[in-house]
Amino acid sequence: MTSNFAERHLGSGPDAIRRMLDTVGYTSLDELMNAAIPESIRWHAELDLPAAGSEAEVLAELRELASRNTVATSMIGLGYYGTHTPGVIKRNVLESPAWYTAYTPYQPEISQGRLEALLNFQTMVCDLTGMHTANASMLDEGTAAAEAMTIARRTSKAKGQVYAVDADTLPQTINVIATRAEPLGIEVKLFDTDRDELPEGVFGVHLQYPGASGAIRDHAPIVEAAHAAGALVTVAGDLLALTLLRAPGEIGADVACGSAQRFGVPMGFGGPHAGYLAVRSGLERALPGRLVGVSKDADGAPAYRLALQTREQHIRREKATSNICTAQVLLAVMASMYAVYHGPDGLRAIARHAHDHATLLAAGLTAGGVELASGQFFDTVTAIVPGRAAEIVAAAEAAGVNLWHVDADRVGIACDETTTAEHLYTVWAAFGVEPADATDVADLALARTTDFLTHPVFRTHHSETAMLRYLRRLSDLDYALDRGMIPLGSCTMKLNATTEMESVTWPEFGAIHPFAPASQTEGYRELIGSLESWLAEITGYDAVSVQPNAGSQGELAGLLAIRAFHRANGDVQRDVCLIPSSAHGTNAASAVMAGMRVVVVACDDLGNVDLVDLDRKIEAQGDRLAAIMVTYPSTHGVYETGIATLCAKVHDAGGQVYVDGANLNALVGFAKPGKFGADVSHLNLHKTFCIPHGGGGPGVGPVAVREHLAPYLPGHPLHPQSGVGAISAAPHGSAGILPIPWAYVRLMGPDGLAQATAHAVLAANYVAVRLREHYPVLYSGNKGLVAHECILDLRTITKATGVTVDDVAKRLIDYGFHAPTMSFPVAGTLMVEPTESEDLGELDRFVAAMIAIKSEIDAVGRGDWPADDNPLVNAPHTVKSVSADIWEHAYPRSVASYPAGVMPVGKYWPPVRRIDGAYGDRNLVCSCPSPEDFE
Amino acid sequence: MTSNFAERHLGSGPDAIRRMLDTVGYTSLDELMNAAIPESIRWHAELDLPAAGSEAEVLAELRELASRNTVATSMIGLGYYGTHTPGVIKRNVLESPAWYTAYTPYQPEISQGRLEALLNFQTMVCDLTGMHTANASMLDEGTAAAEAMTIARRTSKAKGQVYAVDADTLPQTINVIATRAEPLGIEVKLFDTDRDELPEGVFGVHLQYPGASGAIRDHAPIVEAAHAAGALVTVAGDLLALTLLRAPGEIGADVACGSAQRFGVPMGFGGPHAGYLAVRSGLERALPGRLVGVSKDADGAPAYRLALQTREQHIRREKATSNICTAQVLLAVMASMYAVYHGPDGLRAIARHAHDHATLLAAGLTAGGVELASGQFFDTVTAIVPGRAAEIVAAAEAAGVNLWHVDADRVGIACDETTTAEHLYTVWAAFGVEPADATDVADLALARTTDFLTHPVFRTHHSETAMLRYLRRLSDLDYALDRGMIPLGSCTMKLNATTEMESVTWPEFGAIHPFAPASQTEGYRELIGSLESWLAEITGYDAVSVQPNAGSQGELAGLLAIRAFHRANGDVQRDVCLIPSSAHGTNAASAVMAGMRVVVVACDDLGNVDLVDLDRKIEAQGDRLAAIMVTYPSTHGVYETGIATLCAKVHDAGGQVYVDGANLNALVGFAKPGKFGADVSHLNLHKTFCIPHGGGGPGVGPVAVREHLAPYLPGHPLHPQSGVGAISAAPHGSAGILPIPWAYVRLMGPDGLAQATAHAVLAANYVAVRLREHYPVLYSGNKGLVAHECILDLRTITKATGVTVDDVAKRLIDYGFHAPTMSFPVAGTLMVEPTESEDLGELDRFVAAMIAIKSEIDAVGRGDWPADDNPLVNAPHTVKSVSADIWEHAYPRSVASYPAGVMPVGKYWPPVRRIDGAYGDRNLVCSCPSPEDFE
Repeated sequence: MTSNFAERHLGSGPDAIRRMLDTVGYTSLDELMNAAIPESIRWHAELDLPAAGSEAEVLAELRELASRNTVATSMIGLGYYGTHTPGVIKRNVLESPAWYTAYTPYQPEISQGRLEALLNFQTMVCDLTGMHTANASMLDEGTAAAEAMTIARRTSKAKGQVYAVDADTLPQTINVIATRAEPLGIEVKLFDTDRDELPEGVFGVHLQYPGASGAIRDHAPIVEAAHAAGALVTVAGDLLALTLLRAPGEIGADVACGSAQRFGVPMGFGGPHAGYLAVRSGLERALPGRLVGVSKDADGAPAYRLALQTREQHIRREKATSNICTAQVLLAVMASMYAVYHGPDGLRAIARHAHDHATLLAAGLTAGGVELASGQFFDTVTAIVPGRAAEIVAAAEAAGVNLWHVDADRVGIACDETTTAEHLYTVWAAFGVEPADATDVADLALARTTDFLTHPVFRTHHSETAMLRYLRRLSDLDYALDRGMIPLGSCTMKLNATTEMESVTWPEFGAIHPFAPASQTEGYRELIGSLESWLAEITGYDAVSVQPNAGSQGELAGLLAIRAFHRANGDVQRDVCLIPSSAHGTNAASAVMAGMRVVVVACDDLGNVDLVDLDRKIEAQGDRLAAIMVTYPSTHGVYETGIATLCAKVHDAGGQVYVDGANLNALVGFAKPGKFGADVSHLNLHKTFCIPHGGGGPGVGPVAVREHLAPYLPGHPLHPQSGVGAISAAPHGSAGILPIPWAYVRLMGPDGLAQATAHAVLAANYVAVRLREHYPVLYSGNKGLVAHECILDLRTITKATGVTVDDVAKRLIDYGFHAPTMSFPVAGTLMVEPTESEDLGELDRFVAAMIAIKSEIDAVGRGDWPADDNPLVNAPHTVKSVSADIWEHAYPRSVASYPAGVMPVGKYWPPVRRIDGAYGDRNLVCSCPSPEDFE
Repeated sequence: MTSNFAERHLGSGPDAIRRMLDTVGYTSLDELMNAAIPESIRWHAELDLPAAGSEAEVLAELRELASRNTVATSMIGLGYYGTHTPGVIKRNVLESPAWYTAYTPYQPEISQGRLEALLNFQTMVCDLTGMHTANASMLDEGTAAAEAMTIARRTSKAKGQVYAVDADTLPQTINVIATRAEPLGIEVKLFDTDRDELPEGVFGVHLQYPGASGAIRDHAPIVEAAHAAGALVTVAGDLLALTLLRAPGEIGADVACGSAQRFGVPMGFGGPHAGYLAVRSGLERALPGRLVGVSKDADGAPAYRLALQTREQHIRREKATSNICTAQVLLAVMASMYAVYHGPDGLRAIARHAHDHATLLAAGLTAGGVELASGQFFDTVTAIVPGRAAEIVAAAEAAGVNLWHVDADRVGIACDETTTAEHLYTVWAAFGVEPADATDVADLALARTTDFLTHPVFRTHHSETAMLRYLRRLSDLDYALDRGMIPLGSCTMKLNATTEMESVTWPEFGAIHPFAPASQTEGYRELIGSLESWLAEITGYDAVSVQPNAGSQGELAGLLAIRAFHRANGDVQRDVCLIPSSAHGTNAASAVMAGMRVVVVACDDLGNVDLVDLDRKIEAQGDRLAAIMVTYPSTHGVYETGIATLCAKVHDAGGQVYVDGANLNALVGFAKPGKFGADVSHLNLHKTFCIPHGGGGPGVGPVAVREHLAPYLPGHPLHPQSGVGAISAAPHGSAGILPIPWAYVRLMGPDGLAQATAHAVLAANYVAVRLREHYPVLYSGNKGLVAHECILDLRTITKATGVTVDDVAKRLIDYGFHAPTMSFPVAGTLMVEPTESEDLGELDRFVAAMIAIKSEIDAVGRGDWPADDNPLVNAPHTVKSVSADIWEHAYPRSVASYPAGVMPVGKYWPPVRRIDGAYGDRNLVCSCPSPEDFE
């Protein structure tokens, strides 16, 4: 019992499984899976993976791996800094299921807590950068900088294709920008802001502030010159430095970007951390990613929700300008709470701590005759030590301090919140100079004179008690997996087991800089190596890179590999990507970003890719065909039987096959994309492999390829290897959370993984069978079976009664559920994915709620309740609304509050009623409103 | 900012402090404290403690201490076993503020979650032991056994004073029993149950099952013989063994006791763990400690609350039969959840795992020619190895496995949930025998044939998802410090900081057996040594023992020291303990347990000890005077000015002065009991020193004494030292949570500790001043100041309006507060202790609520609302009640739900309405009711 983790991961035991099989009409899981999955793609051998370990064994193995990482003092800098995660934030956010098991706040009524936290994040970024609107959030500084480049390209009136990048920019940022620029035909030119003129033909300029070398420069003249040339300017600013330095907005920057890592988020060998992106007034609607805004609910109360969602890629598809979906919500919440906890004075004190230490360090070095690259710095100094860099870095490393080995003649040293006098002694000793005494701290050249974080939220929760209660209060507003099921189709909201999560907050995984010496990261590298090889085995591919830190980035990486492959073969003209009409919008957006043109392939009436249309499209494109991108099982939740044929047709025409791994939870142990015809896939480790959704990130989106594409996997400037450029800022992306999928695979073993797939498929078919007499199930495959999710078609019901999918989704809140996916992939439908982790009791509770809702819909249809005053259209109901002194609805309070089958004790109550999204978009407010608005 | 933990611990910053001082009428905290504390006891020097460390520094120090403990494999047994704490329980109970910052469920309406968990605990104990009623819970197995002895003494009709104890009982249990027996005049006789007859004159018998040696014996014949002699029989049973063995109840035991440690609770170098105590039908009302029962609320819905509270010591004072108050709630919750998660099949599988390993181990040993003490065992075997024990134990220890060195000729080896084949290989090697192959597992001699844990709660939550949601749902029912203030007078509900809590769940502190070799516990011993010396410095005493694992045990230890001191001086007649009428009931109960007679000293009209009456009582007792027990500041929350005089008078009469340290939070840094005249105190580390209340335990109650009493501190059979016998089962009591007070003292430093005291006193005076025009403040001291708490007198109000303290307490729930202490120390009053951790915003919210309630009381008084239908008498209001279809009350729903000043978003709603305690006592149900009762 104790040693079998699979029994904990799977919601239902043998008895429940038997009852579900009876309902679906099969005698065993094997029989079900044989019927559901086309034999043409079926993989019959057991996965070649280590046998399942018990939770105690796997934790012991992780401890052993952790012990092979060395927690040294990092003074490397380059965008990653030591930081003290306040205990109250670590325990009550990063280690709290209420925060980490939440989904993206697409149902804002049940997400007000994290929406408030994200609004705080946006406010913090705007205040510190001096910009008008910030999103929440970006994947890292590198990708944020790349997105800033495309904002400039889209909005600049300049005709040139040159993107000028400050030569003192973080090397990984330069590389990510370059990777993204190439397929778009943008020419990246580095320039030395001290010496060089702005290059000709610029549409945009990227500046680092302070520079990677630590130097603080007055960028105002460059901004002026760029604007004169019609170019936009992005300033990549260090948020901590900005508490003391003039803000980018104050010198006229159009865009600001960067990382919030050092606001309490562990380095984690590179991630995950929240990147940020902010724009001046006028560019709001060009901002990619998720933007939280203030609107009002049905009672007129202020309420938060995601703003301007029509900009998002799942709406705009190939017209989208960015493919990002996942943000870094959990980490953005942490960073925002760090600012809430410390407040402006606390942040300034931390910044001064770093600056004072750097100043003292510099004083000692200069007194000892060491030349510095710049006399103006915030926390980082670059020492010029001709020929001695290697020796100095080695001496410091031997004493437990990592410095940055810039080149043979230069050493970079970054101070931060955690720097102590002891560390400075070590550095001075490594340089062979005498310690300095306390030194006068010179005024900063570009000292900030404006106030920031003036909103009360940043000036109230400074005691631990107050902070704890604020975190509790916000998390109590939200619905996450710790309250009940989240049956979101295509999102695979399954168990995020504690044992999987546990090691993430160990210092041996958290306190490692991504550019730490390899000798200090043996444990990490072994873990990543095993994970990559296990994922290759599971998917049937030959090579895997975990660098992409979201599914969207994995897609881009995969398409760039295809692009590079064709170009290496001389097929530069191959630039057409076929995408079925049922595809997720991200696919099209990624293809565009990879320099491809999207051609849509139709689906037939059964929801499958129309192979006749495919033939037509292939023929029409001829040798322009680069690839096809399909999701398998399809986004319709069906195992399409034509998949093998489809792959063959595309291959025959010289194209590559990209299988989107979003639905891999329906394949593991039963079919391998790399073996049934695909050349490349990305996986979503935050779906199938148990990384929690974190309220909308972190995600991890490894790219997996067959042998011929392996040379084109992502590279990294600091980890030289073959491949296209860097996709993410860190060599191994969000390495800090890779122990989660590692543990999942170790705990489940080959048998457990296959069981999970079968249980997930059974659960979806069970729901489909139980509900199909109430709601038509839109698509199915062999023998009427669905894969791991099913689409409930409400279009006829809506036509007949006026009750919409929105109404049903919001009414489900009253029944204590998170809604299924709404109107994707088909408008007017709900897509349900129960996953293997939900037990039969919860599935039955959901089925009962859906049936009860159907009878409410029927009542509306019969005219028992008016179309504009019924429990559906008025859903969700808050406590305030059902306990109001006056009740004038056509249905009683008890129907609103406690509809059939919901126990009163422990019911989840939403804090707001239905939110008016359009109102918020018309009256865009994306930072904290004043407290009076809530009275 | 970041380095100053005190700013995080203290609720209010400088601005707020200034405003509070203005209100109270002082210009500085110094001025306030000089006015409040009598100069005669004032300590002016700074405490001689290490300067405050930052959170990062203190965590680093704790990591260093932890690294000096060795986590070996424990096969020592003796009541402490390796166990796997399920991750989901560790994270969501032991590491969750919602559980650990809760108070004892005296306000049951806001404690339904932990009451359900405790009812599960009682049900689990009853099922496994086969007894009728179990409490929830005892401090450890030793004290549970001692309480069982006194149950037997009180209920047996036998005249003898002999308590016969199975010689194969755990040595620490024997010692605790002996310590408790002596002052009560009970003679403890060990007897060998295999050979000896039951001694003559027995009123009770204690049997261990299985024995400490591992032997399983059929105790039925002894039970029969004991009953024939009119004696009661207690069986100390191992709960895990009882899943496979015939239950104590099935052989007629009257009482069962033991420990639930191995149900998922880390060993923690001895504690804390939940002990259990259960009785047969008919003895319910003799059961000490806390008993959860089922009753109903004002709407007739089933509801849990503490049953039979009139038995409790705070009601019965010197008539009490036990002094226990604190239970081990947090640990009992963990153990009950372990049973919920594993279910009966899982528990049986774990038991079989231990038994199978022991069987295999024994097979190897016997095959190798090693003789075993018994052929019938569950998980523990005792090997007879004449002259070789030391060498074998040493060999195993060198290989990382701790065995039990019984004596020169015997070695004990215990298997448990964590035992692996590897461990057996190590043990065989240490014995020099060959490994055994798989062996047939013989049927257990006394195999269990009855079912257990049949209630659905033990058969439902077996997936991690289901378990997580059950834990979340229960914790959401409760109000704890993470939601808002708990202004309980005399309970000091202050911040339990995450940094203080963090190390508690590190394996280096958790996975250490209390009898591990000293070489493996260097870190623990240094931590305990520092803590004891810091506590001595803070209190002004010369020696401290942290062994007592609750305040009550500290009291008993202190009184036993006084008793021993007098006896050593030949003053055997000194057996009178003076106790003021204002004292906490525990004081009197402890005195009785220490063999003393209680004589009450009156208080004067100002609430102070009446020194004239004291003179009278001293004179009347003459040389019978043993001690006086006073609380300082008094339980009236006042710094009595006569304390120094009082101490002198008692000393002059040959008595010792016991100062109850319950209110130490008003003294630290400003006065030292050991310097102003007291000879002994106990402290409550779960009050002043930040151990969280855990919903009603764990507590730690060190005893602190002056030099002359130091020889009489608690001893322990396995850690030979001078002193009276063991007070608790483990040498250092609940050592596993001592890192919490250690961290608190290190983080605050001398200055921070004194600041905390001053802030606490200011907060209490602020509340008193703000509320005194609405509610009379009952007692005050110098210049009208209170100490760290204040008593609001409602008696006149109740007389005038009929509104009681109960009504106000329950109405406070509607306003989002936990009630202050009700009717202690004066009936008809509320005692408010805000502590230093509440910020001014929260204090003002409380004041506003109390003032609003006063205006509601006035409305009742004026007759605006009927006496039997107003928001006070009907409080608290549930969501169900305020959203009911029909509302026929004299006041509107909005007044019920959202009284003045309470924001609707984030309001805490109780799950039940006011609970009828008397109904539950008349219809006593103390195990899980069937689910149908809730429909």
